[in-house]
Amino acid sequence: MYGMIGKMTAVEGKRDELIAILLEGTTAMPGCRSYVIARDPAGANGIWITEVWDDQASHKASLALPAVKAAITRGKPLIDTFDQSTVTEPVGGHGLPVAAGR
Amino acid sequence: MYGMIGKMTAVEGKRDELIAILLEGTTAMPGCRSYVIARDPAGANGIWITEVWDDQASHKASLALPAVKAAITRGKPLIDTFDQSTVTEPVGGHGLPVAAGR
Repeated sequence: MYGMIGKMTAVEGKRDELIAILLEGTTAMPGCRSYVIARDPAGANGIWITEVWDDQASHKASLALPAVKAAITRGKPLIDTFDQSTVTEPVGGHGLPVAAGR
Repeated sequence: MYGMIGKMTAVEGKRDELIAILLEGTTAMPGCRSYVIARDPAGANGIWITEVWDDQASHKASLALPAVKAAITRGKPLIDTFDQSTVTEPVGGHGLPVAAGR
């Protein structure tokens, strides 16, 4: 599996709007086993995103999906900074069903 | 929901053994929606753990489960350092079914 742990900071006051766009735009992504969007309780504008994919190719392919591309276009102006992005190699656990669309 | 993103470093050469203990010890935790154990591709001994719980109380209660307590006892000597622990407030996404045991 292929994982990512990312943190971004929304433009001041735009976090909820950005989260709503992310939630709408990231449904039905083939190869996606987990995609969790979370507020950062330590900061008013921080967002954590943790992802688990079948493999790196399925993550890359998701970026070409119309709904994801639309979310990126709508969300980009609401992002102030990308603070952290870490690649991981998930090995197991809970909440990792076989991905939809396979 | 209540989330955690943690990073630890296993004692040199003990990462796989520690991961196996974590995988065995963290099944059937009431209130747990997601618990993903991942290798850190950037380091030979790093482990990332990302968790989503119904609430902070369910996370706290899990630490008293016999299987979890046993895993902590067995795993502790294999942990070199806790490098990072971040609390999050998950708001949605994929891979977050209603937790088992509710």
